Amino acid sequence: MTERILVGQLAARTDGPVSVSGWVETVRDQKKVQFVILRDETGAVQLVNPATRPAEDGTSQDAAALELTDAISNLAHGTFLTVTGDLKHDERVKLGGLEIKLHSLQVAAAALPETPIAADSSMDKRMDWRFLDLRQRRNNLIFRVSTTLEHAMRQYWIDRDYIELHSPKLMSSPSESHAELFALDYFGDQTAYLAQSPQHYKQMAQAAGFGKVFEISDVFRADPSFTSRHATEFTSVDAEISWIDSHLDVAAMQEELLATAIQAVKDKHGGEITELFDVEVTVPTLPFPRIPLAQAHEIIKARGYESPRTDGDLDPEGERQISAHVAETYGHQFVFITDYHPEIRPFYHMLDEATGLTRSYDLLFNGVEITTGAQREHRIEVLEAQAVAKGLKLEGLAHYLDFFRYGMPPHGGFGMGLARVLMLLLGEASIREVTFLFRGPTRLAP
Amino acid sequence: MTERILVGQLAARTDGPVSVSGWVETVRDQKKVQFVILRDETGAVQLVNPATRPAEDGTSQDAAALELTDAISNLAHGTFLTVTGDLKHDERVKLGGLEIKLHSLQVAAAALPETPIAADSSMDKRMDWRFLDLRQRRNNLIFRVSTTLEHAMRQYWIDRDYIELHSPKLMSSPSESHAELFALDYFGDQTAYLAQSPQHYKQMAQAAGFGKVFEISDVFRADPSFTSRHATEFTSVDAEISWIDSHLDVAAMQEELLATAIQAVKDKHGGEITELFDVEVTVPTLPFPRIPLAQAHEIIKARGYESPRTDGDLDPEGERQISAHVAETYGHQFVFITDYHPEIRPFYHMLDEATGLTRSYDLLFNGVEITTGAQREHRIEVLEAQAVAKGLKLEGLAHYLDFFRYGMPPHGGFGMGLARVLMLLLGEASIREVTFLFRGPTRLAP
Repeated sequence: MTERILVGQLAARTDGPVSVSGWVETVRDQKKVQFVILRDETGAVQLVNPATRPAEDGTSQDAAALELTDAISNLAHGTFLTVTGDLKHDERVKLGGLEIKLHSLQVAAAALPETPIAADSSMDKRMDWRFLDLRQRRNNLIFRVSTTLEHAMRQYWIDRDYIELHSPKLMSSPSESHAELFALDYFGDQTAYLAQSPQHYKQMAQAAGFGKVFEISDVFRADPSFTSRHATEFTSVDAEISWIDSHLDVAAMQEELLATAIQAVKDKHGGEITELFDVEVTVPTLPFPRIPLAQAHEIIKARGYESPRTDGDLDPEGERQISAHVAETYGHQFVFITDYHPEIRPFYHMLDEATGLTRSYDLLFNGVEITTGAQREHRIEVLEAQAVAKGLKLEGLAHYLDFFRYGMPPHGGFGMGLARVLMLLLGEASIREVTFLFRGPTRLAP
Repeated sequence: MTERILVGQLAARTDGPVSVSGWVETVRDQKKVQFVILRDETGAVQLVNPATRPAEDGTSQDAAALELTDAISNLAHGTFLTVTGDLKHDERVKLGGLEIKLHSLQVAAAALPETPIAADSSMDKRMDWRFLDLRQRRNNLIFRVSTTLEHAMRQYWIDRDYIELHSPKLMSSPSESHAELFALDYFGDQTAYLAQSPQHYKQMAQAAGFGKVFEISDVFRADPSFTSRHATEFTSVDAEISWIDSHLDVAAMQEELLATAIQAVKDKHGGEITELFDVEVTVPTLPFPRIPLAQAHEIIKARGYESPRTDGDLDPEGERQISAHVAETYGHQFVFITDYHPEIRPFYHMLDEATGLTRSYDLLFNGVEITTGAQREHRIEVLEAQAVAKGLKLEGLAHYLDFFRYGMPPHGGFGMGLARVLMLLLGEASIREVTFLFRGPTRLAP
């Protein structure tokens, strides 16, 4: 490696020669002095060069100085380069109170002079040039926050002896339903389907005696919707655990997980998030409020809203209303909505014998659903009956149902969309903003 | 949660009432006494019950005792259940020096009486019933080792401020070559391809100024081969870093990463690995040996072997030979083979100006290639010329090439097959043994 100093390390360094590498954010090419803002993954620093211009009277000038001045004049925004120079701490410099007086400049790869996007470009245009869009400090922070959030979740699970899964995304039968399914030819003689979730396999891990598992990986939905919350490929955060008494044991794990992970984000990035997103990261208190669905409907009705859905589920505005109620009543950003009717739940959710409702929940965060969790039906006879009651063909579920024939512990788990959590944590308007490269019905590139 | 005690916690517990949950590994149903081995994810424990049989003379017996004895007699292997009983430490008990005298037994889900696989079943049969196969202690350990290995790698990167990526697996153009490519219909008007690697996108992250990135995720190859080292879907461990001087900077990171991760595995599972796999985990010393490809050919020739490949690459036996040489000469399990000819490397590998060879390496571990690493060509003119020289159409690479037009730092990285590392670490014969659910040309289920 070169003796490269990260911009973030400069403040702690004494004055003297340094070498930094990054890209050109701005150039101010004045007659007598040139300023360059150079950014790397840790910050930005001002470079300064007293311009040496060809003398109008033809007096000879220092060739190297002329060349350096000329090189700076010709720098396009975005060009990656390495510079050497003298670091000087100077309180008068707005940007971090320091600057580097340039000695030399070495371009690694020059940018074309016309940048195809600007700060006010449309989202679609920004997605076309996502690698330029991601150079913004704000966008870079999103993915550092994501990294911290994920690692804290994994650490929570590792500390509790969970096993990390990599379940297959190529399947011989759908993992959830026959809707929204991507299919592909598999060696000319079979059809493979892309996993809509790791549901089958994280349950299989329970039959395998793994006890507690998690997986963070991409899943696929051939969903033609264009909302701010949907994508055709997204990162799903999944966990599944054995020997639970009900879905509330899953909820208890998930709320502790989230509080731990959000605490880690606040500790590491809280200040920067406030600066760049104008959001104060709030670590949620435990337990999160829990409200049965029927009661949620009464609450929002009392607020003057009724969900237009005929299936009894909350619509997006209903989710916002109940979250507003929870925020006002409990000062909480999260709420578990519980006790869903089996008609609006998949066949594998366990039913509560007393109420006939599912042992399941949705978790809402700042008004948007981020999770469905449930206890699963582990008794094969009941499971088959529930599948048949939903009109499913048992043959299509053969592999899945086999998992239950040779012993299975009571178990449950949840799936959570990583991008939704990030969107809501940072107060962004769309998961597109917090996804590295969004995929939608008309978006397959770059 | 029930007041469940994990089997692994029993040894430290004083004698008295306990409740444990798990599955039936064996039943010994003797006339006067019954023994059950119950296993959970942390270990196995012996349950004992003095049998109460219907008296031949018709004397009345304790109904509950009769029922418990009968229930044990009818337990099928694999049945998941919760038992309560009195824990008793007793040095005469072979299995861990303790047993539980049963009070009660509650079956969660009974197994069918005939288990479809046995210890000596073929690999294909075991894969059909993978969830039963995975109940073996040895197989369970594989995935605990995998979890530890991965987490240690991620921790290494997190400690060094890498950003974790989730790059899309659905792409509008191939990420590596047009061979071995899965294609699918995308909403009726486009063809999507499944990512063969995150290559394009981890390079895009360099153009985005992310500096250092990693990703651990599944990638897809429509590879019709049936070797012990190939799969159509596998977990790829990828990293990419900016501002390197050459591929040797990538190698230096990778060897440190592996040494750190293998140390973590040894610390946490070393004893158990030796017990169950008869393998002594060796933490590799740094640096790993580095041998240019041309010299490797000379070395194996001197050992009496010549690679039959006409393209100048090592064949599998050649890899075993050079690894044997390294083991004998340096006592090392790893070796970097460097300086590959551009003909056997992708177009995006950077060439060394002095030698005309690529700035790339393969990493061999115990005789098998686990990684290709390289410095990438970051200069758009050179990159385009190298693509054309390989006969590639630039139009097909348009999105990728765009990443290089607006500034790009020098960079490089590696991709490593997780299953290969696990296979070689544990001395297994095939990646199928260390993959949760293997996918091959004729294997798409369960």
